[in-house]
Amino acid sequence: MNTADLGLPVDVPSTALFTDQYEFTMLQAALKAGTAERRSVFEVFTRRLPEGRRYGVVAGTGRVLDAVENFRFDPGVLSFLREQRIVDEPTLEWLARYRFSGDIWGYPEGEVYFPGSPIVRVEGTFAECVLLETVILSILNHDSAIAAAASRMSAAAGGRRLIEMGARRTHELSAVAAARAAYVGGFDSTSDLAAGFRYAIPTVGTSAHAFTLLHDSERGAFQAQVDSLGRGTTLLVDTYDVAEAVRTAVDIAGPELGAVRIDSGDLLLVAHRVRQQLDELGAVNTKIVVTSDLDEYAIASLAAAPVDAYGVGTQLVTGSGHPTCSMVYKLVARARSTDAAAPLEPVAKKSLGGKTSVGGRKWAARRLDAEGIAEAEVVGVGEVPAELAERQLLVELVKGGDVVAREPLDAARARHAAAREGLPMSALQLSRGEAVIPTEYV
Amino acid sequence: MNTADLGLPVDVPSTALFTDQYEFTMLQAALKAGTAERRSVFEVFTRRLPEGRRYGVVAGTGRVLDAVENFRFDPGVLSFLREQRIVDEPTLEWLARYRFSGDIWGYPEGEVYFPGSPIVRVEGTFAECVLLETVILSILNHDSAIAAAASRMSAAAGGRRLIEMGARRTHELSAVAAARAAYVGGFDSTSDLAAGFRYAIPTVGTSAHAFTLLHDSERGAFQAQVDSLGRGTTLLVDTYDVAEAVRTAVDIAGPELGAVRIDSGDLLLVAHRVRQQLDELGAVNTKIVVTSDLDEYAIASLAAAPVDAYGVGTQLVTGSGHPTCSMVYKLVARARSTDAAAPLEPVAKKSLGGKTSVGGRKWAARRLDAEGIAEAEVVGVGEVPAELAERQLLVELVKGGDVVAREPLDAARARHAAAREGLPMSALQLSRGEAVIPTEYV
Repeated sequence: MNTADLGLPVDVPSTALFTDQYEFTMLQAALKAGTAERRSVFEVFTRRLPEGRRYGVVAGTGRVLDAVENFRFDPGVLSFLREQRIVDEPTLEWLARYRFSGDIWGYPEGEVYFPGSPIVRVEGTFAECVLLETVILSILNHDSAIAAAASRMSAAAGGRRLIEMGARRTHELSAVAAARAAYVGGFDSTSDLAAGFRYAIPTVGTSAHAFTLLHDSERGAFQAQVDSLGRGTTLLVDTYDVAEAVRTAVDIAGPELGAVRIDSGDLLLVAHRVRQQLDELGAVNTKIVVTSDLDEYAIASLAAAPVDAYGVGTQLVTGSGHPTCSMVYKLVARARSTDAAAPLEPVAKKSLGGKTSVGGRKWAARRLDAEGIAEAEVVGVGEVPAELAERQLLVELVKGGDVVAREPLDAARARHAAAREGLPMSALQLSRGEAVIPTEYV
Repeated sequence: MNTADLGLPVDVPSTALFTDQYEFTMLQAALKAGTAERRSVFEVFTRRLPEGRRYGVVAGTGRVLDAVENFRFDPGVLSFLREQRIVDEPTLEWLARYRFSGDIWGYPEGEVYFPGSPIVRVEGTFAECVLLETVILSILNHDSAIAAAASRMSAAAGGRRLIEMGARRTHELSAVAAARAAYVGGFDSTSDLAAGFRYAIPTVGTSAHAFTLLHDSERGAFQAQVDSLGRGTTLLVDTYDVAEAVRTAVDIAGPELGAVRIDSGDLLLVAHRVRQQLDELGAVNTKIVVTSDLDEYAIASLAAAPVDAYGVGTQLVTGSGHPTCSMVYKLVARARSTDAAAPLEPVAKKSLGGKTSVGGRKWAARRLDAEGIAEAEVVGVGEVPAELAERQLLVELVKGGDVVAREPLDAARARHAAAREGLPMSALQLSRGEAVIPTEYV
């Protein structure tokens, strides 16, 4: 895939500047010291889940693959690095030829993860791997945070439809990635047309209060909407008086009215009243969509209400209290020379302060109990025990610089549903708790 | 400015799809009903500040102007809208000719705001204005959230240097906007090269733990870094033992060593020890940079520590607990006919549920006390009282579709510093409180 295929209102000629300056200065110093070409292994993992969360959701993997493929230094980028004196000429020459040629393994998108899970493993020379740190973390930290919130909301919704509508609450391009991550986490559709364009996620939307206010009366507005969008449309019934609006809506559209949307008030109470009113008016198939500051707790509290679909904005795109994950990208092993055959040696930060990590190139597997339910995330260095060989979590994503694991977004969405299904029931409790399975290092 | 001038690793051919679907379906219905061309006024405002915050910071205005200018429907976008049946043919024809031709007034970037402040006012036909809702809100809600956090951090830092380094904790393009907003809010530099490229914000960065771990010894790593980046570089001293690292650092670079960075541990304690050690070693001009999960409270708690610069990541780019603002875009007035001379009539949602708003096209002014300190945000409809005429807050941004208020980012940064300076002292208290001045409706 080249950059043109990225499509969407955003063409990304290169992802090479989505990078912290220190990646480049480290590169320059390592090139000069003769250490840049040492074979190295970096791993992405998190030391902890967001407080109270019971599992994490890997999202953004597909976007990481796009970013790695488009990590290139065109003349404009090189000129900038030269003019700003970010790096020296030998480094610029090296960058002009840059193309990631290493291997990337990782948890497939939609999989769940726990503290210590080696979510992504990047292998190659130090130089080619270190440059990818920032953009890989940006993508995974953002997208996984949204997917985790989406997964909790989808568990709370218990099969009712979920609409992502948070574009206005986050950066315009985060919004596109958020719609994508929400879809992986179990949402059904999005209001964001850019997400529909870029990722073929189903899009929805009909009208806002402004449409009603534009017209001389609510009746006039409803009539205009039905005339244009048909009886199957969703009418927004809370601009003035809800009961009056519902009466008018059914009067105009008849029992074929698709849905009504309620965007304010006590949703539980109002949904019950509206359902009763719709049924009395014969609109028994007209659905009720609720929106208005929903999160997973509000969704769960509406479980007994006659609601057909939830529209979620702010709390979804801000990760419901946890807008980012704490994934890090750490050097865990490197060769002591630039000889391609030199053995990898584990390395790890040793200083006090809680930021230590486990050295060595890792595998991970999920151990199941007799019923086939997950009972531990097992992480190790070296040989994989035979009984876990079939339960390994890392898959090959990039081989010798070529992406080998591209997949449709629906595959990630289905994988997440299956992975969540394979966790102990308590994973779905919304209350704060520990990771639902322990991570064991062997 | 055309799209090519947007530069950066991201070229935005059009911002037209950063839009919720319902804007388009409302447009279609209004076109059919003959109401689309009614003259309308939309306003951006917030009903409340994030809990406990004493003032808000307007940021993103410059990006809004770019977005409005690039809101165009090229054939690819129109094909998408046609194929997905988002809108009908007459609407597609209308969109193909779309160019915003109205007026936009707003608080200039960097200005502070309060609940009810009419931050942006968009005037034109309903059709041309309604389409801009989503992208305007995306930009302002995101950028203002980051700028507000940055402003608090910069107040807490009391003149010490602040480095934005959160790229890895947020979407790769949010990161660019976040660096920009942080600069408006008072930060001095960023680690994000894309932000340097796109907005000419000063960039900084030297090395991470991986660089030390790559080498056979810490001494080897420091020597390599100094050889390449010079004695003025910043050495990261907490990979193994801090005291040992500081000794090695000064041994290699001498007293000309630019700075040391501490990224873990009890920063207050470690900074004192490191300062003492540096001074004893004669490196009295070597600076100390601290990083590691800082927020405005941690920065404030280090006020008495010998720290020269703070690097802030996660808490900055996630708005320090408030990753978005609650700005809305509401129709506040519209004509009752499409006659260009028809008078504007105020409109407002009336339903229960707390989401009411004040109708009518508004002005705003900041009333000062005898010492020239702000004492109220005054918002009104109609004539501006003579005594407030000179204190009006809205400025003309777009006139007849043309951007008339482009300015360098430094102007917004300076404006914010001045605006904050003009607030009562209690604005700078980090503890939770009410808006520092009341909003009065006249």
